[in-house]
Amino acid sequence: MKEFDIIKNYFLSRSYQRKDVQLGIGDDCALTTVPEGQQLVTTTDTLAESVHFPKGTSGRAVAHKALSVNLSDLAAMGAEPAWISLSLSIPEYDEAWLRDFSLCLQELTDYYSIQLIGGDTVQGPLSITITAQGFVPQGQALMRSKAKPGDWIYVTGTLGDAGLGLELLQTEKAAEPMHRNYLINRLNFPSPRLMVGTTLRRLATTCIDLSDGLKSDVQHILFASQTGAVINVEQLPLSEAMLATVGKDEGIRYALTAGDDYELLFTVSEEQKGSLEVALANCNVSATCIGRINGVQEKLELQRGDKPYQLPETGFQHFS
Amino acid sequence: MKEFDIIKNYFLSRSYQRKDVQLGIGDDCALTTVPEGQQLVTTTDTLAESVHFPKGTSGRAVAHKALSVNLSDLAAMGAEPAWISLSLSIPEYDEAWLRDFSLCLQELTDYYSIQLIGGDTVQGPLSITITAQGFVPQGQALMRSKAKPGDWIYVTGTLGDAGLGLELLQTEKAAEPMHRNYLINRLNFPSPRLMVGTTLRRLATTCIDLSDGLKSDVQHILFASQTGAVINVEQLPLSEAMLATVGKDEGIRYALTAGDDYELLFTVSEEQKGSLEVALANCNVSATCIGRINGVQEKLELQRGDKPYQLPETGFQHFS
Repeated sequence: MKEFDIIKNYFLSRSYQRKDVQLGIGDDCALTTVPEGQQLVTTTDTLAESVHFPKGTSGRAVAHKALSVNLSDLAAMGAEPAWISLSLSIPEYDEAWLRDFSLCLQELTDYYSIQLIGGDTVQGPLSITITAQGFVPQGQALMRSKAKPGDWIYVTGTLGDAGLGLELLQTEKAAEPMHRNYLINRLNFPSPRLMVGTTLRRLATTCIDLSDGLKSDVQHILFASQTGAVINVEQLPLSEAMLATVGKDEGIRYALTAGDDYELLFTVSEEQKGSLEVALANCNVSATCIGRINGVQEKLELQRGDKPYQLPETGFQHFS
Repeated sequence: MKEFDIIKNYFLSRSYQRKDVQLGIGDDCALTTVPEGQQLVTTTDTLAESVHFPKGTSGRAVAHKALSVNLSDLAAMGAEPAWISLSLSIPEYDEAWLRDFSLCLQELTDYYSIQLIGGDTVQGPLSITITAQGFVPQGQALMRSKAKPGDWIYVTGTLGDAGLGLELLQTEKAAEPMHRNYLINRLNFPSPRLMVGTTLRRLATTCIDLSDGLKSDVQHILFASQTGAVINVEQLPLSEAMLATVGKDEGIRYALTAGDDYELLFTVSEEQKGSLEVALANCNVSATCIGRINGVQEKLELQRGDKPYQLPETGFQHFS
C-alpha cells in the first residue's frame, strides 16, 4: 500500500471543479487565484480517532465531521469556502471505509462548491487533517477582538446536544430512540453555519465557533476584546431531545460545558440588533440572545434569572 | 495535555511576521492577501515517524525535513514561499524535543521569510502535516505537462545521497566518518531548491522535485507530457561521499532508485539551453544535463555511454 494512490483513486475524479482553480491534484502543487478585493481565510484542523471521535465512527461521519469543523471556522470569520487540502492517515486499506469517507466528502464538497486541491495519504493511526480556505471581502472578516461593552451575545441553534450524544454512545445513559438518534447525529454530523457567518459580516462585532463548550469558548472573545460578559443560563437554547432526556438543569450544564456544538457565538451592538434579527430570519437557523458584554475585563458572570448561577463541579467527558 | 497550547507556547511568539498576513495565529482562521498578478501555489505533505523518517530522528531534523519537503514542492512550481499551516501529532509532551523542533522551524521560517499562520496539535503517534503556500506570477508556474521531444533533461545537485545515508543509519554498512556525516545530513536536512525554481520560470518547460527516486519521478513528467526520455546514467551526478563509499556502479543504482533527494528535475528546450546555464550559474547549485525527451510515449530508456543500461533487480529500502 506504499503511497496508496488513495487520493487519486478515491478523490481525484470526484472533486468539484471551480473556475478559480487553474491546477488541482496531480502536479507538485495546486494553482489557484483569489478574487480581487477578497482576503484569503485559512484554517487547519486535525481529527484523530479516540481523541476527536470515538473508535468505530463510520467513514461517512468522520468525513462529515472533519470537513465541518473546518468550515465552521471559516463560518466564524464570515468567509465563504473555496478549497481544501486533505491529509489522511489510515491504519490499513479498508475499501468500504474509504468508499464511505470519500463519497461523503464528495457530496459535501459538491454541496458547498468546494474543490479538493491537494493532499497526502500515509499509513498510520486514523487521523484526518484538513486545511480549508475561503474568501471574505477585504476588511469584513469577523474577529474575536471587537466586542464592546453593551453588545448583545447570541448563539445559533441549540447547545450541548453533541456532548449528550457522546454520553449516550459511551455510557448506559438511556434516551428515547428518536432523541438518541437526533443527539448522536448532532455529534457526528455538525452543520457549519456558513450562511449565518456571511450574513453577520457587516452586523456582528465578533464571532467564534463553539467547539470546546460555551463557557470556555466565550472566554476567547473576552480575552481578545478585553471585556467581560453576563450570560443568563435560563436563556440557553436547549433542544427538545435534550430537555426530554436530561431536563433543564442538567441541560444547562451540557450547554455550558460540553464541546462539539459547532454553533456560532457572536456579539452585536445595540444599534445593529434589529437589523441582525431581520437578516438572520432568512438563514433558517435560530439565533438566541443569551447575554451581554460588559467592561469587567475577562470576567464571565453566569446568572439564572436574577440570581447568580454556580456551575456544579462535575464535568462531562467530551472530544475536542 | 488537552489541546496542549503547544502552538501558542512554542510557535506563536516566534513566527516571522509578513506584511501580507493581516491576522495570524490566535483567531478561528488566518487572514492573508495574495499580491496582484500572482497565483497562489499550495501543497500539503505529511511526514510520519517510521514511514518518512526513522524513529529517534531529532526534533531539529524532523522540523527541517517536514518544512523542506513542502518547500521543495513549491520550488518545483517556480513559486516563492509565503505561509505555512502546521498540524503536529505528538505522543507525549516532550519539552526538549518540542524546543528543538520549534527552534529549527523558527530559524527556517525566518530564513525563508515564511509566516506560520495556523495549526493544530493533537496527542498521537509522531506525525507532522504542513500545508505550504506561495506565489508565482500569473501563468509562469512550472508544470509537469509541457515537455516536448528534443528538450534536455537536467537535475540539480547530486543524487542518491539520502538513500545511502538511510542505509548507513539502518545497516552495518560502513563509511568514512566525514562521508557518513555528509550522507546522513543529506537525508535529514534536504535543501529545497527555491532559487533554482524561480530562476527556471521563463526558461524550463517542466519541473518536478525528486522524492521517490529519479526513475520513478521522471515518469510523472513522461506521463503528464505524453513523451518518452533517454537518460544516460553515466551522467548522473554523484557526490564524492557516494563514490568513495560505494563506487560508481552502486552509486548509479542509488541515484536512480533511492528516494528523499529533494533535488529538482527539469526540462529545457534546445533554444533556451544556453540562457538556462547562464541563469543557473548565479544559483550556487550545480545542474547536470542527464538526457533528453523524445516522442516515445511514457517510455524511459536508460543508457550507459552508448549501450542500454539494465538496472539490477535489488532495490533499496527508502522512506518516501
